[in-house]
Amino acid sequence: MSTASSLLPLVSPRGIAVVGASPRESNVGGRLVAALREHDFPGDLAVVNPTVDEVFGVPSHASFADLPFAVDLVLVALAAARVEETLRSAADAGARAAIVYSSGFAETGAAGHEAQQRLGALARELGIRVLGPNCQGLVDFGAGLAACFAPAVLRADPRHLAPVAYVGQSGAVGGTFFDLARERGRTPAVWASTGNEVDVSVVELARELAARGDLDLLCLYLENIPDGATWFDLLDRAAGSGTRLAVLRSGETEVGRRAAESHTGALLSDATSFEISCRDAGVLRVRDVSELVDLAVSVRRRPPNRRGIAVVTTSGGAGGLAADRLAEAGLEVPALGERTTEALTALLPSFAGLANPVDVTAEFMVKQAANLPRVTDALLADEAVDDLLVILTNVVGTMADDVAAAFAGSGEKSITFAYLAAGDESAAASRVLRAHGLAVHGSIASAVRAIALCRVPQAPAPRVERGPAVALPAGFGSTTEWGARELLVRAQVPHPAARLARSADEASAHARAIGGPVVLKIQSPDVLHKTDVGGVRVGVSAAEADDVAAEILDTVTRLRPDAAIEGVLVQEMAPRGVELLVGLRAGVDGYPATVTVGIGGTAVEVYGDVATAFAPVTPERAEQLLLSLEGAPLLTGARGKAPADVTAAAEAVSRLSGLVEYGAIAEVEVNPLVALDDGKGALALDLLVRLTGA
Amino acid sequence: MSTASSLLPLVSPRGIAVVGASPRESNVGGRLVAALREHDFPGDLAVVNPTVDEVFGVPSHASFADLPFAVDLVLVALAAARVEETLRSAADAGARAAIVYSSGFAETGAAGHEAQQRLGALARELGIRVLGPNCQGLVDFGAGLAACFAPAVLRADPRHLAPVAYVGQSGAVGGTFFDLARERGRTPAVWASTGNEVDVSVVELARELAARGDLDLLCLYLENIPDGATWFDLLDRAAGSGTRLAVLRSGETEVGRRAAESHTGALLSDATSFEISCRDAGVLRVRDVSELVDLAVSVRRRPPNRRGIAVVTTSGGAGGLAADRLAEAGLEVPALGERTTEALTALLPSFAGLANPVDVTAEFMVKQAANLPRVTDALLADEAVDDLLVILTNVVGTMADDVAAAFAGSGEKSITFAYLAAGDESAAASRVLRAHGLAVHGSIASAVRAIALCRVPQAPAPRVERGPAVALPAGFGSTTEWGARELLVRAQVPHPAARLARSADEASAHARAIGGPVVLKIQSPDVLHKTDVGGVRVGVSAAEADDVAAEILDTVTRLRPDAAIEGVLVQEMAPRGVELLVGLRAGVDGYPATVTVGIGGTAVEVYGDVATAFAPVTPERAEQLLLSLEGAPLLTGARGKAPADVTAAAEAVSRLSGLVEYGAIAEVEVNPLVALDDGKGALALDLLVRLTGA
Repeated sequence: MSTASSLLPLVSPRGIAVVGASPRESNVGGRLVAALREHDFPGDLAVVNPTVDEVFGVPSHASFADLPFAVDLVLVALAAARVEETLRSAADAGARAAIVYSSGFAETGAAGHEAQQRLGALARELGIRVLGPNCQGLVDFGAGLAACFAPAVLRADPRHLAPVAYVGQSGAVGGTFFDLARERGRTPAVWASTGNEVDVSVVELARELAARGDLDLLCLYLENIPDGATWFDLLDRAAGSGTRLAVLRSGETEVGRRAAESHTGALLSDATSFEISCRDAGVLRVRDVSELVDLAVSVRRRPPNRRGIAVVTTSGGAGGLAADRLAEAGLEVPALGERTTEALTALLPSFAGLANPVDVTAEFMVKQAANLPRVTDALLADEAVDDLLVILTNVVGTMADDVAAAFAGSGEKSITFAYLAAGDESAAASRVLRAHGLAVHGSIASAVRAIALCRVPQAPAPRVERGPAVALPAGFGSTTEWGARELLVRAQVPHPAARLARSADEASAHARAIGGPVVLKIQSPDVLHKTDVGGVRVGVSAAEADDVAAEILDTVTRLRPDAAIEGVLVQEMAPRGVELLVGLRAGVDGYPATVTVGIGGTAVEVYGDVATAFAPVTPERAEQLLLSLEGAPLLTGARGKAPADVTAAAEAVSRLSGLVEYGAIAEVEVNPLVALDDGKGALALDLLVRLTGA
Repeated sequence: MSTASSLLPLVSPRGIAVVGASPRESNVGGRLVAALREHDFPGDLAVVNPTVDEVFGVPSHASFADLPFAVDLVLVALAAARVEETLRSAADAGARAAIVYSSGFAETGAAGHEAQQRLGALARELGIRVLGPNCQGLVDFGAGLAACFAPAVLRADPRHLAPVAYVGQSGAVGGTFFDLARERGRTPAVWASTGNEVDVSVVELARELAARGDLDLLCLYLENIPDGATWFDLLDRAAGSGTRLAVLRSGETEVGRRAAESHTGALLSDATSFEISCRDAGVLRVRDVSELVDLAVSVRRRPPNRRGIAVVTTSGGAGGLAADRLAEAGLEVPALGERTTEALTALLPSFAGLANPVDVTAEFMVKQAANLPRVTDALLADEAVDDLLVILTNVVGTMADDVAAAFAGSGEKSITFAYLAAGDESAAASRVLRAHGLAVHGSIASAVRAIALCRVPQAPAPRVERGPAVALPAGFGSTTEWGARELLVRAQVPHPAARLARSADEASAHARAIGGPVVLKIQSPDVLHKTDVGGVRVGVSAAEADDVAAEILDTVTRLRPDAAIEGVLVQEMAPRGVELLVGLRAGVDGYPATVTVGIGGTAVEVYGDVATAFAPVTPERAEQLLLSLEGAPLLTGARGKAPADVTAAAEAVSRLSGLVEYGAIAEVEVNPLVALDDGKGALALDLLVRLTGA
């Protein structure tokens, strides 16, 4: 991906030339011309086509050289074979950006893939930014820029625009999103399909849009994991401008990945770092186009801070269902204050449900539907209530009109509607509510999902800051535990006393020097899993240490005759405690290194109970990670067991995470890090290091 | 709940009298009369009202005695205070069922609750079955029975009915379901709201409907856990008639439970047994009204057997998203056969995606939309393909009409559509597809959910059969391990040798008799958790057994001075193995007993990794349960460890589960049951028994 030159000529062109346009309905170029005219493109516009005089009222010229204005952006709607020559001519004429709508590139097989590579090389050579090929283009209704032939987008009446944008490879997914958001009263103001991405990527284009500051929500559809550097830039700009990001990603499963690959040929790498970055930055993650639409309906610039939701319902049953779904989503359905209950008592029939969820009753709706805002106002005044979910069942006809009219002017309030009625009975009222800026959903499930999704905190987690990579200690050459212990010393991570017996005969003397029974472990750069080859013995007395060391050497040599043996590590026995696993991995693809913690044994292997963050982490963040494990009760003291020294363990995790400063380290695993009883510290008992390139 | 007399007079009345009807639009009784007339109720119909001559063309009589026909069913739309006297008169006149629409009962507080209890007692006394009070009634469009005032239901045009029924407490939830299903072309043929359920419950009414055999889907909305006996009856009848059951339950979470309770005052018990019965019988469990609607759209009588789904899409991006969601739902997106690929090659453009998901391309749709059924037919002919998901993006206008017309007559095929376009652009085509019996959904997520939900196997798990309860062995009086060991002997569950030392002095002699080091455990009916009071010591030699036993007695007596002590159990040490937990609980509320298995230690406590079934279980079923645990790899041999004797463990679980035959046992816990290395058996190391009433 080129990041050399600005995207301004693409997103804010002053002069546009369309190539491949003829005045026929079915002609893509002609549709582009018609769309730009219809949306009153304010800059210069011309067609380059020697065979016609004009297309839909726009003058045509024989060549780029004949254009009477400076061209920034060229729209290319030609057969694939003619794209390259056109790009050269356009660049000669001063164009600095092109949208290539043409298909027939990587999506069609090997020859197309080659053609696409040539196109990319040419764009870099010419210094021209290219959106596409095989894309449906770009629309910015507010700027009169309708450089797009997607029918769903062109159908829109852009008089009432929502500050929502879509950027994604797929024009079909984007068109669907646009169409459904429009139907829900939230026509996206900006829309782009990047197609095969020979140059401009979804993330790069989104980064440009995020900087504008006039968008509440930027929806991305991604078929691959973006490069970390551009992605973090986008996260920063979105945070800076107050734009919330939502991501719909294709290829989350192996099956979906295959489908996405055959579609775009994109290379997909491990998604963990990407997902962590989303979590840390409060990116809204959705799994269906319908959820993206729900977000477009519900998202507002400022997400609520607290979690208390009051439910107002015309049906006790629906209220119960909503309470279930809210609780599952981690939201609260708080008890109401005394003053609120008094206010509700005055407003509602005697048999209404005054607890949260508040059941106003059908009778209230039949007789006083127009008073519903007095109920919602009373609830919003309650200090435990942050947001309202109003469930309307069977609110149709004049009752619907009354409710809709009553809520006019409530658009600034935190009210989400679940309007449960067929469209033929509720469309008019929904339209009124939406026109007043209220979020209206068609089911309890989607209303709750939208409320929960929007609640992801906007405030990004502090970004990991790292200095330049540091070289490993001089002489650091071994990746055995003994050879790598220097790292534990440097990182000031507590570990048991140990000595290396270079022959079996030295083991007893070392054991005596250490005192007490010891652990013996084979040391070989070729043996990663020491227990699997009989390379570990615990609780060995000093007297028997020589013999046991000899046995170990014997067994390992027999099982792994080619392994280079450094000797046998004689290590102090550690007290019992909770065994943790700490893993550190260098960053890849522009993402920072990561540190992973888990509880040793079955918890990690069988239950996958791990927590990961970008490294290094502070002791506080390390403690958060440890306590976020499902198995945290084992650390904090479950079933009357003594709590472990979580503080010391977190300190050790933090220090280990600092090892990312050594550029040569690809991976560090400490297994186990033993968290001793509270106040007694934590000890790294075993260490495994892999260097880059190893 | 009374089950004394039949529900026939309620669901199939020949003569109906309406009480409380007047010829005003707002009058509930009047609306009932109008509805019955409009839907051509074929039986006898009259109003009982001395103040009018007729209501909407239906003659009115002064009293029940004046009715010119035999009345089966009385519809009561009077104030609560007048319901009792009306019921008496109706019963005197021979009525055997009543629907009480009146509100003002349990939903209004203590006085109403009392009135409702009186109403229930009266119904039992009169032998009259009562639906309600506070309900919206019953509709069976096919029978011309529209005994209902729910506006959403009465709005329907019942010319095209779907073989779908709704029965639930809530008329509002049901009305919403009805309205949305109607909008999706599946107007439910039968609908009932049971309200406060003073007599007839959702499950009892559903049981009556399930026996009919003309319904494909019976949707239940439940605010409480039904009584087991009636519920199992319903499951049996539905299985017998081929009717599939779907359940939407309110009160699944603590918060929702409170909401549901304040709504109906229903008592909610532990849901585990209910959920097991749903799982075993293949009941479709949904969590939102919208999912119930999706089911009504998609469900057919015969669920598919295999799991392979072919995806046909007009957008590669949408295909990737669908593949992700299908894989997550446990469905397969299989590779296509050679013959299928050949057929697709002949049908589709050269750049189409021929792998599954099949991307037909926008070009194909523009030029040959009407040929889409040839693509789907080719896929349905593939033996790996069981079901089709067709995703339509931006298929509007004449293209939409072409597609819809082309699929006419495909209603019997297994095709599910995800039609992703705004209603204004797609409603007409959707309507055509639906009119031809095809399932059309509005999002990929809901289409996939519907496909996955419908796939729950219809075939019920074999029902647990139990003989009459058996008395405990004579003299069985203790719930300590020693006292309850007789149960292990009877059940033929292997366990280590053990003897009871009634004083410390006997311990060493017992240990010598057993041989090898032993385990010592305090035996007291008052001490359930022996380790918590220092009551267990392992690896004790015969020589030191007396002293250690004395220590144990000393410590326990000090910590629990009031505990009655039987002595100290001297038990053979067991070999190491995988520690399992087995729990047995007697049945409650008409549900069978249950047996629960888990892997000991953190897996159960921290990760909740347990599996439960109705008891007794066969050894095969016990093995299924063990292997269904997330931690099953620990049993089958993970990371090079030896596999455990799962067969022996399953045999032991099966035998333990047979202890449910003893009627006096409330609970048995074996913790641990040790599964030794494969081929070496399994041993019950500790046993805890609680008797009923204890």
